[in-house]
Amino acid sequence: MTTIASAQLPELLQQKADQLRIHSIRATTKAGSGHPTSCCSAADIVATLFFSVMRFDPKNPRNPDNDRFILSKGHAAPLLYAAWAEAGLFDPQQLLELRTLESDLEGHPTPRLSFVDMATGSLGQGLSVGVGIALNNKYLDKSPARTYVVLGDGESVEGSVWEASDLARHFQLDNLCGIVDINRLGQSDPTMLEHNLKSYQARWEGFGWHTICVDGHNHAELLKAFATAAQTSGKPTMILAKTFKGKGISFAEDHPSWHGKPLNAQQAEEAIAALNGSHTSPSPTFSIAPPQPVKRAKSAIQPLPAPTYKPADSVATREAFGDALAKLGEVNPLVVVLDADVKNSTYTDKFGKRFSDRFFESFIAEQNMVGAATGLAACGKIPFVATFACFLTRAYDFIRMAAISQSNIKLMGSHVGVSIGEDGPSQMGLEDLAMMAAQPGVVVLYPSDGMCAYRLVETMANHKGMVYMRTGRPKTPMLYGPEEPFPIGGSKVLRQSAKDQLTIVAAGVTVFEALKAYDELQTAGIAVRIIDLYSVVPIDVATLQQAAKATNNRLLTVEDHYLHGGIGDSVLGALAGDGVRLTKMGINQIPHSGKPDQLLDHYGISARAIVEKIKQLV
Amino acid sequence: MTTIASAQLPELLQQKADQLRIHSIRATTKAGSGHPTSCCSAADIVATLFFSVMRFDPKNPRNPDNDRFILSKGHAAPLLYAAWAEAGLFDPQQLLELRTLESDLEGHPTPRLSFVDMATGSLGQGLSVGVGIALNNKYLDKSPARTYVVLGDGESVEGSVWEASDLARHFQLDNLCGIVDINRLGQSDPTMLEHNLKSYQARWEGFGWHTICVDGHNHAELLKAFATAAQTSGKPTMILAKTFKGKGISFAEDHPSWHGKPLNAQQAEEAIAALNGSHTSPSPTFSIAPPQPVKRAKSAIQPLPAPTYKPADSVATREAFGDALAKLGEVNPLVVVLDADVKNSTYTDKFGKRFSDRFFESFIAEQNMVGAATGLAACGKIPFVATFACFLTRAYDFIRMAAISQSNIKLMGSHVGVSIGEDGPSQMGLEDLAMMAAQPGVVVLYPSDGMCAYRLVETMANHKGMVYMRTGRPKTPMLYGPEEPFPIGGSKVLRQSAKDQLTIVAAGVTVFEALKAYDELQTAGIAVRIIDLYSVVPIDVATLQQAAKATNNRLLTVEDHYLHGGIGDSVLGALAGDGVRLTKMGINQIPHSGKPDQLLDHYGISARAIVEKIKQLV
Repeated sequence: MTTIASAQLPELLQQKADQLRIHSIRATTKAGSGHPTSCCSAADIVATLFFSVMRFDPKNPRNPDNDRFILSKGHAAPLLYAAWAEAGLFDPQQLLELRTLESDLEGHPTPRLSFVDMATGSLGQGLSVGVGIALNNKYLDKSPARTYVVLGDGESVEGSVWEASDLARHFQLDNLCGIVDINRLGQSDPTMLEHNLKSYQARWEGFGWHTICVDGHNHAELLKAFATAAQTSGKPTMILAKTFKGKGISFAEDHPSWHGKPLNAQQAEEAIAALNGSHTSPSPTFSIAPPQPVKRAKSAIQPLPAPTYKPADSVATREAFGDALAKLGEVNPLVVVLDADVKNSTYTDKFGKRFSDRFFESFIAEQNMVGAATGLAACGKIPFVATFACFLTRAYDFIRMAAISQSNIKLMGSHVGVSIGEDGPSQMGLEDLAMMAAQPGVVVLYPSDGMCAYRLVETMANHKGMVYMRTGRPKTPMLYGPEEPFPIGGSKVLRQSAKDQLTIVAAGVTVFEALKAYDELQTAGIAVRIIDLYSVVPIDVATLQQAAKATNNRLLTVEDHYLHGGIGDSVLGALAGDGVRLTKMGINQIPHSGKPDQLLDHYGISARAIVEKIKQLV
Repeated sequence: MTTIASAQLPELLQQKADQLRIHSIRATTKAGSGHPTSCCSAADIVATLFFSVMRFDPKNPRNPDNDRFILSKGHAAPLLYAAWAEAGLFDPQQLLELRTLESDLEGHPTPRLSFVDMATGSLGQGLSVGVGIALNNKYLDKSPARTYVVLGDGESVEGSVWEASDLARHFQLDNLCGIVDINRLGQSDPTMLEHNLKSYQARWEGFGWHTICVDGHNHAELLKAFATAAQTSGKPTMILAKTFKGKGISFAEDHPSWHGKPLNAQQAEEAIAALNGSHTSPSPTFSIAPPQPVKRAKSAIQPLPAPTYKPADSVATREAFGDALAKLGEVNPLVVVLDADVKNSTYTDKFGKRFSDRFFESFIAEQNMVGAATGLAACGKIPFVATFACFLTRAYDFIRMAAISQSNIKLMGSHVGVSIGEDGPSQMGLEDLAMMAAQPGVVVLYPSDGMCAYRLVETMANHKGMVYMRTGRPKTPMLYGPEEPFPIGGSKVLRQSAKDQLTIVAAGVTVFEALKAYDELQTAGIAVRIIDLYSVVPIDVATLQQAAKATNNRLLTVEDHYLHGGIGDSVLGALAGDGVRLTKMGINQIPHSGKPDQLLDHYGISARAIVEKIKQLV
């Protein structure tokens, strides 16, 4: 894919690789921190990919027809930046702004840069992103574009890598090619398998991949391996590249004490002189092969039809989610769905049965599921990811990195709280609000009835950015009509009067407990206001402030969530400056198995408990 | 290991296995929920282990010399309960109390039961617990006791299983034997590999394990496999058992629609009659082989010597943690340490160099690291687990399950907040307080200076239960003397006067920003109180209330953490009922790379920002 005669190619790529090394050394020395030796081990791999293997538009990294490159070992960021600069995207002089507040050439890559699909730097995540992109190209866009992921050897112990490995094989992603940069040295010690390539090969072959072992500093071997990978059908290829950390820096090469350390000015000069000295001709110019354009149908998005539930129906919010998702599939062709073998509990099977081409069963591997979703989102799709809320904790680091990337993924966690009942604490999502609301920019929704859950699914799809929806296991009655709007950042005042002595803020199952408490309190002559806080983040500050003011600055939050980081803290956060008095009710201990109603009462979030508490308070 | 003649053994084990099936069916039918078919596939494996392979004291499951059994596929809990009942620990009649609030025979196993080492039910975690127990027996207690882990096939996709696999091989855990119950059917669909045993074998062999494929319903094959495993040295064994879900229940066997469903009364009767009908003799009595006692040295624990820092020293809290840990190793022989290839950043290498026999390098596999720690804790050790705080998000589901289990593990997360600087957001722990404080019963500590960090390490070890300590990257000056006490639940008032107009609550680096702000505010004639909140959970309510009262009910929290779920919310939670006015300062967006001081200021938590905010407020 280059105009340079192939006999010359390895030497010219060597020269380019050394240029990338020089940039990496210079930038990290200037910054005073960073990982030049981790750049140097992968420089030949990256030079070969960028200047002789990948087809892409170096002036437009967002061109969807491009071959994609993911640097899973994100600490080698300077190498990635150097490759794009050398490809012509920006002036190589800018590389010297590495790691400054003023430049988006950060310590680890983030999608603030046009050529980064997902932030990396938390190890073991890149291959999952690659799986998502490869799924998109193979099954959705039917594009010949290939996806390349460079992994570190140290990160190969991360379980998420093997989840991605399993799914890539399962989906026969022959358009995906990984390269493990086996440089033998971790941060604090040699890696587990050091240069034992056979052990790496046994693992990847065992997982059903096509594997090729190469000298990762030999451009001819690398070129051949990439060509073989491109011709391999039915399975993904992993190239196992034996490399040396610090390759090209004589005094640092293969040396265990050189992890994450920049060279000082003199060392840098010496290393750069040696790298330059090994080439006599001027730096080569490569013509990068253009991408192969694919026709993509325009995506005409129609509004979601109204829900068809009747006022007397009872439906679990998880099921309403599933109902809406299936309908959304009809009106929004960008929506794709991933589930972790619980589709008959989250009801994503309703979508899956109708749109099997846009449904990816992701098996019990939540990390890869979230990572693959971010890859799909990087291709312009709107991925919905569903599992039990408690099992999203499994993917929290992926969720964190997705938030850093401001990825357009939609997460749904079902079976929240003690109201699931008999299955016990391991199956109860009780920290999901805390973990999702902590991440800046993530919208957190918590519908109480089927109408609201249904409507919010469309809102999730149309909102640009990450959204989390929390749903419950038990069936709940209808609170709202089919045309009720539920804007992000809103809330619903369900009960109010001029004589309210206190405001109850609830969401999900506790709304119904609050409503029952209301009736009982009425008979006792106590008037309270009730707010359904379906949007936890952003929160409806105005309505909460108004309610606080009208009810003697006295509030009670009640939630089927642990006490820290849930609705109570969100409301407190909104009203912290106003001097309100707020009482939080929630789950304050590790719960037990039992019947749902029994547990609501036992853990103090039932109507009875609310009535009792309010009688103490007012 | 049984007195029964070996020729009869398979048939007698078959009878015992069917008895376990009957118990499982009966209990789940009575409960009206549960997973009888998942019990039935593993019944022969469990019967063989409990009644003919394992050496243990059936009346004392906590005997440290026992062979250990972990049911990683926790949803088959009734089978586990039935095995212990049949072994004689309790009356089988109690099995009918399954899944009720009144019985600890919960939907999934928790250590509320004497025979459960760690809660399971979040899939893919049991093998890591087994790794921890096997590490303890092989390297610490030098015990011949063996550890058995029954895994499901569906959970084999979880990456954590492969982390455990890698570490078990690395540590040559030949005292560990796993069994995959390959029953072909997941919850919502067939598993990825169905009955393709060769593919399972390729994976486990690829990861360096000894593997044996068996018919999981053939007791003779199972007995032989366990015997072979016990004779295999230098590597762990994985037995790959082909089974059928619902085995023994004719109408449910190998049937995809029978996941997680109890039989109705009539179906149960029919199934039980058939199971009983296949045996003519009375239920056999097995004499279980007793454990092999090992002499364990008494652990004499001495107090930690005082820190030796000088008043003018600067030390990072992470380094003080490392200093203390190394000293703690001398005075507390129960302390063991695990790190994920960042020991030269968390300073656990100081311990590792001196106590290499009690230091387990866990490589870049945080889930297994936490899981193995819980296994070590289940053996009476006090495991300290250290990595960057942000990478503990990777293990959040393991942390959640450890909290459910009230495991005695100690977690340390370093490199918190934007004050790490140039590495950028992927390396910054900014949600660790939210995720740790959400879990009931977890103590959360956040020292500001080296003296406090050092002292708290001993406190962590001596506290019975989970503790998390948050530490910083930058060096900070000494605030306290070497004899200062730091009880859990305390705080330190660093500045106060009768004229204080506001209380600043801070911890970690922001304490020093607050102190700088104090000086500047003094010159502007504004007096403020400063509290160092080194114990975030439990929180020092009395001191906070007193400070609020003394400072016009006006507080400011400032933290190097995202705004939701951190110190601000903890203080709000403590004072919610009191009508205080509190302003939270923290990180309210995804941060960028930059210099530490520059970032503190840019994101509004510097002394300058504090002064500015307070001038607005008072």
